[in-house]
Amino acid sequence: TPALEYTEILMGKGGEESDKQSFRFNDNGGRDVTLRFDLTVPLARFAAQHYNDLGMPFKAYHIGPVWRGENTHKGRYREFYQCDFDILGTYSVSADIEIAVMIYKTLNSLLENNDFTIKLNNRAILNGLMNKLGLETKTSGILRVLDKINKEKEEKIKQELSEKLELNDGQINEVLNFVKIKGDNQSIIESLEKIFVDNQIAIQGINTLKDILSVVRSQNIPEKCFQIDLSIARGLDYYTGSVFETTHNKLPSIGSICSGGRYDNLAELYTSNKIPGVGAAVGLDRLIAVLEELDLLKKELTTAKVMILTMDKSYLNEYFMMATKLREAGINTELYSDDKKLDKQMKYADRKGINIVIINGSREFENNQVKIKNMRTGESFDNITKDDFVEKILSILG
Amino acid sequence: TPALEYTEILMGKGGEESDKQSFRFNDNGGRDVTLRFDLTVPLARFAAQHYNDLGMPFKAYHIGPVWRGENTHKGRYREFYQCDFDILGTYSVSADIEIAVMIYKTLNSLLENNDFTIKLNNRAILNGLMNKLGLETKTSGILRVLDKINKEKEEKIKQELSEKLELNDGQINEVLNFVKIKGDNQSIIESLEKIFVDNQIAIQGINTLKDILSVVRSQNIPEKCFQIDLSIARGLDYYTGSVFETTHNKLPSIGSICSGGRYDNLAELYTSNKIPGVGAAVGLDRLIAVLEELDLLKKELTTAKVMILTMDKSYLNEYFMMATKLREAGINTELYSDDKKLDKQMKYADRKGINIVIINGSREFENNQVKIKNMRTGESFDNITKDDFVEKILSILG
Repeated sequence: TPALEYTEILMGKGGEESDKQSFRFNDNGGRDVTLRFDLTVPLARFAAQHYNDLGMPFKAYHIGPVWRGENTHKGRYREFYQCDFDILGTYSVSADIEIAVMIYKTLNSLLENNDFTIKLNNRAILNGLMNKLGLETKTSGILRVLDKINKEKEEKIKQELSEKLELNDGQINEVLNFVKIKGDNQSIIESLEKIFVDNQIAIQGINTLKDILSVVRSQNIPEKCFQIDLSIARGLDYYTGSVFETTHNKLPSIGSICSGGRYDNLAELYTSNKIPGVGAAVGLDRLIAVLEELDLLKKELTTAKVMILTMDKSYLNEYFMMATKLREAGINTELYSDDKKLDKQMKYADRKGINIVIINGSREFENNQVKIKNMRTGESFDNITKDDFVEKILSILG
Repeated sequence: TPALEYTEILMGKGGEESDKQSFRFNDNGGRDVTLRFDLTVPLARFAAQHYNDLGMPFKAYHIGPVWRGENTHKGRYREFYQCDFDILGTYSVSADIEIAVMIYKTLNSLLENNDFTIKLNNRAILNGLMNKLGLETKTSGILRVLDKINKEKEEKIKQELSEKLELNDGQINEVLNFVKIKGDNQSIIESLEKIFVDNQIAIQGINTLKDILSVVRSQNIPEKCFQIDLSIARGLDYYTGSVFETTHNKLPSIGSICSGGRYDNLAELYTSNKIPGVGAAVGLDRLIAVLEELDLLKKELTTAKVMILTMDKSYLNEYFMMATKLREAGINTELYSDDKKLDKQMKYADRKGINIVIINGSREFENNQVKIKNMRTGESFDNITKDDFVEKILSILG
């Protein structure tokens, strides 16, 4: 999907905050356009537009930049990358489960010790609560306040619920006590089943949680990686069912590194076809911030294993030929692009972590020799010829 | 580099046309910003800003969207992807050669029969001509007109040179006769050496062409893939030396699929350090248009080789377990995300080109069986158990 969408496609889909943070302008053709604030809304628009060609269910992944005009800090930028994966066209809990399992498998492959927590909740349960308290009309406002519950002081939350949303003290307490229900997954499920004995809206959400956890257990995924958290509301208005947020246990301050949920009514805004959906997105910049903090990022500056020095410009053809031979043998090779002094070229190789260098000047070329040096061990290899230098380097590299 | 740059970074760097086509606006913080029109200008800005950390020469590649508000047609969009590769920090012709060879190797790996032509020219030669004709002050205007010579009628070009740039008829003829010099590379080089006997500016450009062609020949790259074309000027103001354009021989109307050149003064606009550069960019959307026209794109709708049907929702745990086992064996597997009717699920697999399906309902699960069907051959395998179904599928897939 493109970075720019017509403003009417994006506005009002995420909610007040993403509208406020939008990069919106008129292009040279006078079109009112906005840079996308996520990949989900454009995907829903795309699926609505190409419904007949795609066929449902439609599974997709999508990596791209999105824009939100907010304050920046570590792992949080105005332009950032999301890696989305989604299943459209089905209401089945099977899709919710697959997304939840994908979040786990993705992060399990990148982080050590399963030291992350995928927090699960379901908007249907929160909607059930609103229904129980007679607060349906204020649902999206209340959820937007609740979304900040782990970031702001309780006093502030209470104040907003009271002043902005005009909840009375009893309602505020009910809401806050509800989202503060803690415990292991089993005990939270039991509490919920007691609270919502015959609330059909909430029961559907509870069953989805149970189905997700059932597959998690049967797959031998450590259950500690999944935790029901009734305070997870997600700030975006379009969620209707499952919601997911994932934090690294050691670095909760970086925020969620993989979030998502079910959005069954989003595409309805663009088509009369029903296109429910569920998906999640890795926040790539935050994930990288986590990997950097934990020192899990490889520090390699290059994939090159060999560098060919340029000792004498008049032998450029020969240098290129050597590079080609090495590359054809599958050895990543850098040709130093300048005829600077020897020590400058060596320093460059050293800084990049390239251990093997080829140092050929006119003398070596005249004698049909290739002079190889292993900078890590200090070894030099002098009696190598044009015909056997590739094999020699392969043997040095092991 | 980010999609948005401060407008002052981008304006005036590409030339009149890219300024006019810019997506420019004030963001919510009142910053005057513009969506990048290429990746080269942001790279030069980036290299200027991080000069001390990067170390020179600095080799980089960079894939991302860029924006130009122009009329769209096949392979030409307002948002499109460029795949850049650049060498910064050296004036050495070695870098020009490496970029030229990379263009060849990239396209050779994607297109058949070497059926493309990398057109070579050098701004120094064109500057030498302007010098010879006393037209230095009008150079960028004239080059911008010449850039259109293969797209517009000669009358139009003459008119622009005469009316806009006030060249007299003699100058117009000299310029047009020069850029129309045709022939094989060797004969063009000989013509140039006769025209520019002691014009030092042009001679440098001629030598660069000779050095590039010398390596091309010594690498056994078919010389027909490289053709000096003195009419290639490139529309961007920042080029100073080598310029490259590549068209597919059968599809010239799609335009250049890989272009670039040397831009030695671009970074100077952002730093007092000298950061010369040379690079090129594959125009991804145009390349894809070419691949589509030539039927060289794989039409696979999925990488999945096996699909598990969802016959009975109460066995979700088992379906997920089978999918996990297959995936762990390296077999890309799709789990159908819904419990629709059997024929709908089969049709989905068929449309996606997935030949092997697993059709397990309660009966199979109760009997500890896995029912596999090869839809291409019509074969069914009934007496397979949970313990051997992965091996069976591996053997079916060969």
